[in-house]
Amino acid sequence: MRVRFAETDQMGVVYYANYMVWMEIGRVELCRTLGIRYRDMEKEDGVLLTVAEATCRYLAPAFYDDEVEIETWIESAHPRMIAFGYEMKNAESGAVLAKGQTKHIFCNKDLKPARLPAKYHAAFGISR
Amino acid sequence: MRVRFAETDQMGVVYYANYMVWMEIGRVELCRTLGIRYRDMEKEDGVLLTVAEATCRYLAPAFYDDEVEIETWIESAHPRMIAFGYEMKNAESGAVLAKGQTKHIFCNKDLKPARLPAKYHAAFGISR
Amino acid sequence: MRVRFAETDQMGVVYYANYMVWMEIGRVELCRTLGIRYRDMEKEDGVLLTVAEATCRYLAPAFYDDEVEIETWIESAHPRMIAFGYEMKNAESGAVLAKGQTKHIFCNKDLKPARLPAKYHAAFGISR
Amino acid sequence: MRVRFAETDQMGVVYYANYMVWMEIGRVELCRTLGIRYRDMEKEDGVLLTVAEATCRYLAPAFYDDEVEIETWIESAHPRMIAFGYEMKNAESGAVLAKGQTKHIFCNKDLKPARLPAKYHAAFGISR
Repeated sequence: MRVRFAETDQMGVVYYANYMVWMEIGRVELCRTLGIRYRDMEKEDGVLLTVAEATCRYLAPAFYDDEVEIETWIESAHPRMIAFGYEMKNAESGAVLAKGQTKHIFCNKDLKPARLPAKYHAAFGISR
Repeated sequence: MRVRFAETDQMGVVYYANYMVWMEIGRVELCRTLGIRYRDMEKEDGVLLTVAEATCRYLAPAFYDDEVEIETWIESAHPRMIAFGYEMKNAESGAVLAKGQTKHIFCNKDLKPARLPAKYHAAFGISR
Repeated sequence: MRVRFAETDQMGVVYYANYMVWMEIGRVELCRTLGIRYRDMEKEDGVLLTVAEATCRYLAPAFYDDEVEIETWIESAHPRMIAFGYEMKNAESGAVLAKGQTKHIFCNKDLKPARLPAKYHAAFGISR
Repeated sequence: MRVRFAETDQMGVVYYANYMVWMEIGRVELCRTLGIRYRDMEKEDGVLLTVAEATCRYLAPAFYDDEVEIETWIESAHPRMIAFGYEMKNAESGAVLAKGQTKHIFCNKDLKPARLPAKYHAAFGISR
């Protein structure tokens, strides 16, 4: 994705909170690749993925109009929680911009912890 | 309110979309002054205030850490719609930063247009 | 572009200020199509495009994960100012979500109004 | 501070990236308390505080219009880096919403690491 002007701050680089938004884009697209549309999981099965922890290490600044590549993978997955890892790179130079991790708890519509329905286990690589 | 670093962009001034967020703060606080807590109106009576139109004229830039004053008033109000006006000023110098207007349609939880319940009419100055 | 989770609010639709961010994406990409990279114009020639006015009419809500198409065009252009028009549509249904307009003043690095350098006139359709 | 509508997402709670914005508010205000105006440090001495790492653990959701208290402290400080700790609470109930930490590197205007000028050492509790 391309860095938006709105994402920069007065230091002339991307504001640090926006990397969290990028990670969200990464995990939504990873889910799509795995055959899971997050929107449907939420609507049809009432499964929400709340964030329990988020970390980001910033290695090099990202600038307006840069093209950024977000590599996303599942670090661990259980019926009650899932963790994603992220590496964000400048698409042109290949320079690593940031590395991140988020941990999530599966919840129901009332934001109470809940087990992920079995039909999603295989896609997330949860064995049993 | 004070300008957040997150609200600036690489021009070193507040990014133009953030004035819309400030207008929202203005109208929420105006409602509070009128005895209406927007959160309760939404939760208890299922009344949503969707935005139909928003305009902003930018007169002078706002900078990080500036204190900004938002004056808000009702421009017109009917059981089906309401319009707010806004003037944003630098609190220190008094310089006008921007003038705005938003028009809203009252909706129910399904985002369908709906009449505002009568109990809110007086507060919004709707005569009948 | 695809609607980000971060762009929604608790009404379950895209928050109204984010349409201003989308318009910015539209005009940056329009400039790119016209052979102008906004980033270079800023860096190399010190030309900034400050926003003088922004308007948006909201016709239908946009939802998380919707694909949105932004049509952007130049409404008028002069050596001192330029106006863009926008139409945002749901890419799948074709439904018009919003129509907008922004007016901009060309400025120098110090945010003072300035004439656009002649080399950019043709691309923006400024005749003389 | 009070939770803005703009800060919520379609789960009806504050979007996780916005806690990073709150932490920024916390550290700016802490600096002000310590006699350092971040804006002046940047403008007058060319000292930037870039973010090297940010972490947040989310313990309870924050809702629109909640009043939130941000407690901020310095975890460690050296002439080349500083770490802040944060605890965000619901001001009414006292419930802890989130705990965070950010690590920063002092940089010059060109975003290159630089020593913090000695005149700021005392305020940040840097002994020598």
